[in-house]
Amino acid sequence: MKKIKIAILGLGNVGSGVWNILHTNRNEIIKRSGYEIEIAKILVRDLNKDRGVEIPKGLLTSDIEEILNDEEIKIVVELMGGAGDPKDYMIRSMQAKKHVVTANKLVLANWGEELFSTAEREEVMFYYEASVGGGIPIIREINESLTANKIEQITGIINGTTNYILSKMTLEGMSFESALKEAQEKGYAEADPTADVEGYDVTYKLAIMSSLAFGTRVHPDSIYREGISKVTSIDIDYAKKFGYVIKLLAIGKEENNKLELRVHPSLVPATHPIANVNDAFNAIFIKGNAVGDLMLYGRGAGDLPTGSAVVGDIISILRNHENEFNFNPSNNYLGLKEIKDAGENESEFYIRLNVRDKVGVLGAIASTFGRNNVSIVSVAQDVKGEDFVSLVFITHKSFEKDIRNSIEEIKKSENLNKVESILRIENFN
Amino acid sequence: MKKIKIAILGLGNVGSGVWNILHTNRNEIIKRSGYEIEIAKILVRDLNKDRGVEIPKGLLTSDIEEILNDEEIKIVVELMGGAGDPKDYMIRSMQAKKHVVTANKLVLANWGEELFSTAEREEVMFYYEASVGGGIPIIREINESLTANKIEQITGIINGTTNYILSKMTLEGMSFESALKEAQEKGYAEADPTADVEGYDVTYKLAIMSSLAFGTRVHPDSIYREGISKVTSIDIDYAKKFGYVIKLLAIGKEENNKLELRVHPSLVPATHPIANVNDAFNAIFIKGNAVGDLMLYGRGAGDLPTGSAVVGDIISILRNHENEFNFNPSNNYLGLKEIKDAGENESEFYIRLNVRDKVGVLGAIASTFGRNNVSIVSVAQDVKGEDFVSLVFITHKSFEKDIRNSIEEIKKSENLNKVESILRIENFN
Repeated sequence: MKKIKIAILGLGNVGSGVWNILHTNRNEIIKRSGYEIEIAKILVRDLNKDRGVEIPKGLLTSDIEEILNDEEIKIVVELMGGAGDPKDYMIRSMQAKKHVVTANKLVLANWGEELFSTAEREEVMFYYEASVGGGIPIIREINESLTANKIEQITGIINGTTNYILSKMTLEGMSFESALKEAQEKGYAEADPTADVEGYDVTYKLAIMSSLAFGTRVHPDSIYREGISKVTSIDIDYAKKFGYVIKLLAIGKEENNKLELRVHPSLVPATHPIANVNDAFNAIFIKGNAVGDLMLYGRGAGDLPTGSAVVGDIISILRNHENEFNFNPSNNYLGLKEIKDAGENESEFYIRLNVRDKVGVLGAIASTFGRNNVSIVSVAQDVKGEDFVSLVFITHKSFEKDIRNSIEEIKKSENLNKVESILRIENFN
Repeated sequence: MKKIKIAILGLGNVGSGVWNILHTNRNEIIKRSGYEIEIAKILVRDLNKDRGVEIPKGLLTSDIEEILNDEEIKIVVELMGGAGDPKDYMIRSMQAKKHVVTANKLVLANWGEELFSTAEREEVMFYYEASVGGGIPIIREINESLTANKIEQITGIINGTTNYILSKMTLEGMSFESALKEAQEKGYAEADPTADVEGYDVTYKLAIMSSLAFGTRVHPDSIYREGISKVTSIDIDYAKKFGYVIKLLAIGKEENNKLELRVHPSLVPATHPIANVNDAFNAIFIKGNAVGDLMLYGRGAGDLPTGSAVVGDIISILRNHENEFNFNPSNNYLGLKEIKDAGENESEFYIRLNVRDKVGVLGAIASTFGRNNVSIVSVAQDVKGEDFVSLVFITHKSFEKDIRNSIEEIKKSENLNKVESILRIENFN
């Protein structure tokens, strides 16, 4: 039996999951990888913390040098999360000729290029399946399964926290605030939920996916971003009336060598499979010019699902590391592609306005849209006969800049009380 | 630029798709594989047939020896379909030290073991992503992405023809006969639709998937099989009332080292993502002990989707073929596992009986079920006051043999007019 030594950096949720999988599925892993995997060292900050996992004390170390200097350790698995040390440790592991596996979306989204080029230069393998979509094998899908395709679109629900909140609002009629509170109580949302709720986490993952799918470099800061904190139950109800469900989507599209990249709450058709993706589940929809429509659905977080992706990567390395030519799931670069200015992005829109309830207002607003090249598919109006009334417009496909110009003009009208919400519609075509 | 020569056997639907993809996505494929792929020879039966694809006549041959004897051809892509020659040509290609890619589910399901062992012995690679699920990368998923898992369940809609028919019946209220006729007119169903409609095609695909997922050998003949020709609009309507949709499922489960394998129409919860998989789409649901629930959705047939899988396989071979240690997506064998006798299979059931409309009949039938260890969840009865009335029973999880015994006993009752239908329910737990 061939043996191999690995080290794990970080023993949180995912680290414990990896430990458990390597032990529970030991026989299957030996059969499939050809190796018995020995966890030789685990880097932790606090050697004495009680971790609820039975790990021999001798394996723990708080000194990264012990791992970097151990020539018998062939694979380093980075599961610390966050920027700073993790990136440094990954680079130094590669320089010490160790293969690297990570689940670190933040580092990958921001410094992926440096990691890819270091891995190539040092001739080591670098795998990162767990960085997007938890247990969903989206990275291998793009890098290895869909290689025959020009990918035209990649759209996903890739944040479990916000999907949990939106599901609770949609299926149980909860308010955003109550749903967030419940998500925090269940451990799905952080005490400071900003990174999830405002869509930052999603931009990291979309940057990684779209870099690979479109064969270019995408920095998370170049992605248009809106979170879900302004989504209300009223919009969810109106969406339902029009046959839609509201989801926080990451959207990447390529057309004529230009990329459209955006993260925002979207109305999706209730009949599309992605509409039924609820609670903490993730789903990623891909359109390739050969494969057509494809969707992957699964658990986007959690110790065992994410651990499944990490251990899968370790096995991939074991299957290949004796070879001279290491395939690296990063050498997919086709060239730099332009990212559209947000104003040039195109969608159908859902626009809810609160306006004075009097004759001629609807016509005036419709005319304003028309003058700005925005054409209306349908309008709904609530029936309450007070001073003000809600008007909901669904538009045909329009440029963002035309929507913005329309709204600026409408805002000048004395008939407008408030622009309640502007949401985009994704019809997957 | 490195170049490689390949040969294609068969120039039907999928063969033309492969030709088109290799030309349309030429630049992406060169970048991703590191090779310029030259189609050196194409085996066809009739050299003079008009094929609607612009292929230089000189590439066509009707003589397999021209391909087998050409040492410059490194990869043979078998897309003829059917048994007989295709299997022979694949084996002989391997013996001539050529890597092989196929989409042939029939050969793989029946003679997979021989192909796997020949590939291993001859030290060539053998890829077959397109054999199940068309463009859906289910084979790579099982063999490469989920290697960290013990797979507990694999359930799928893996036949486009029957899913098209059931979708038309469910969404448009068509009869089985009209839906089949429409499928034939659209080219989704053959003139003789038996292989699809009676579930044979699905057993081939389930045999392949479950061999890989459970690491054992499964022959299609050992799979319990029922087709959809007896599904009626009445059952579809009753299912809907109970919150279900009827789909033709392939089901593979492992429990205590025993496999449960069956293909039959099933009631699936309308809220499960698989319920929204309509028309010619396929979807495969997997439960792994680490990854949890996972689903893949996409186009299960068609020239380009299937071609996408075939060309993806060619690229995988190109990425690896210079290495000494070739990974073969077949070396996943964990040992022979027992396949349960159908009577030992367990499901919830939907049973529709036509019985005499008189007092005491429902009670008598319920008692019969009870005596045979079948417990009832709910009963529906139609309201028409004629001599006979429909009774629909939904059961708790029961053994097939207990259901059969109940039905035998009920059949003896003079109150029974007809056993209208017995369908299984799949709740994915």
